[in-house]
Amino acid sequence: MLSVIKIGGNIIDSPSVLSQFLQIFSRIEGAKILVHGGGKLATHLAQKLEIPVQMHDGRRITDAETLKIITMVYAGLINKNIVAELQSLGLQAFGLCGADLNLILATKRPLKNGIDYGFVGDVQTVNGKALFDFLSQNISPVIAPISHDGNGNLLNTNADTIASVIATSLAKLMPTNLIYCFEKKGVLSDPQDDNSVILEIDEAKYALLKQNGVVSAGMLPKLDNAFEALRQGLEQVVICQADALENFGKPNFVGTSIRLSNG
Amino acid sequence: MLSVIKIGGNIIDSPSVLSQFLQIFSRIEGAKILVHGGGKLATHLAQKLEIPVQMHDGRRITDAETLKIITMVYAGLINKNIVAELQSLGLQAFGLCGADLNLILATKRPLKNGIDYGFVGDVQTVNGKALFDFLSQNISPVIAPISHDGNGNLLNTNADTIASVIATSLAKLMPTNLIYCFEKKGVLSDPQDDNSVILEIDEAKYALLKQNGVVSAGMLPKLDNAFEALRQGLEQVVICQADALENFGKPNFVGTSIRLSNG
Repeated sequence: MLSVIKIGGNIIDSPSVLSQFLQIFSRIEGAKILVHGGGKLATHLAQKLEIPVQMHDGRRITDAETLKIITMVYAGLINKNIVAELQSLGLQAFGLCGADLNLILATKRPLKNGIDYGFVGDVQTVNGKALFDFLSQNISPVIAPISHDGNGNLLNTNADTIASVIATSLAKLMPTNLIYCFEKKGVLSDPQDDNSVILEIDEAKYALLKQNGVVSAGMLPKLDNAFEALRQGLEQVVICQADALENFGKPNFVGTSIRLSNG
Repeated sequence: MLSVIKIGGNIIDSPSVLSQFLQIFSRIEGAKILVHGGGKLATHLAQKLEIPVQMHDGRRITDAETLKIITMVYAGLINKNIVAELQSLGLQAFGLCGADLNLILATKRPLKNGIDYGFVGDVQTVNGKALFDFLSQNISPVIAPISHDGNGNLLNTNADTIASVIATSLAKLMPTNLIYCFEKKGVLSDPQDDNSVILEIDEAKYALLKQNGVVSAGMLPKLDNAFEALRQGLEQVVICQADALENFGKPNFVGTSIRLSNG
């Protein structure tokens, strides 16, 4: 079984939380891939360098200078420090971005309503075979959320999307779980109650949850994407907190497991 | 035949010169590895971030903040842009630093005469086997001059040294040439005359050149290191300009070929 695990800013932004997570990650049995986002480091660096953050409708516009920051922070600073730390834990890890081994080929996002989002990539193809070869040798890839366009340009790409396309690509070659490490313990039935985790969601239950308005609006696109990935052959998509991973697969695991059918 | 090619600031600092070099590199026949230095980009970024450059006896001291800069610029910005450009030229490239795949394990340099050079690594072991596996699949590694200590720390390491230890490690597995791309056309017999390239140097000739004071003081450590690498099994060490690489192996090639004996 392959676990593709995605972590974001809530883990990366704290060295001690990251260290704790990497220890858990290194102990996960079976093949594993880590996809990391960027967190606040890139924003801090952009501020120090006085590169203005341009937003449109809540989305960051990646101009040439911002792309440089992202490449330095994601593929350099964060990626290589994670790899060095995993090596110290005895895990044979190595870091890549989407340009390496032609891992993630993308196209620059076309103008949308006249807005140029800059160097942002929409994924076209994934070289799952290259990752499979590493996994077969007990090597754990650590992936920075950057793709390339095949014409020499790097492109900023959403880390959740990168995790999803990598997992669905590998799912064609081996049974694969996709695990999103989240701030909350999972999908909550009551947003005010952190312990109201819905442990299992299948398509029928999801239809009900939507109908009853139980799932929050922010969670809907995440769940829609999860079901889309499941239809492409994933075993399950899991949403949980990073420290819950320690118990993944055990009866005391707390988190939301999403499958097409929990029958 | 494997070519391990090292490029430095004179190539990296100019996007057009770098592009021209990468085109030549992509056309080199046989297995190839590119080792790149950092150039002025790291210095510029440190200046912008107002991180003081600390020097001692002409050597930079790598404090924690400087190490971050180096990791971002070398392993991120430079490394990934080179890989993306090589991919656009049809070369299956991928970038790594010494932490990836435990490629270059080093120890933090001990205090020297009471001076702490900071996060600087002296190479202990090289995972040549990992690189050999890539080369066997027609994949070209692109290596940033950063090592790690096995305890989770990245270490700044001289790019000439990285190129040399990688070449000597691979030389145990396949015939290997080490090529330094240099500002000058090669080792000059007259430092004032750029065309006075000494085409071949073997141990006997080197002894004579030193005796006659022909080789400049700055060149001596480079040549000493070259002969040390040759004694560890390299075919030849070559010092030439980047654009001369186009003719490497042909009669019109201009550059200095260093062998133990040119018999």
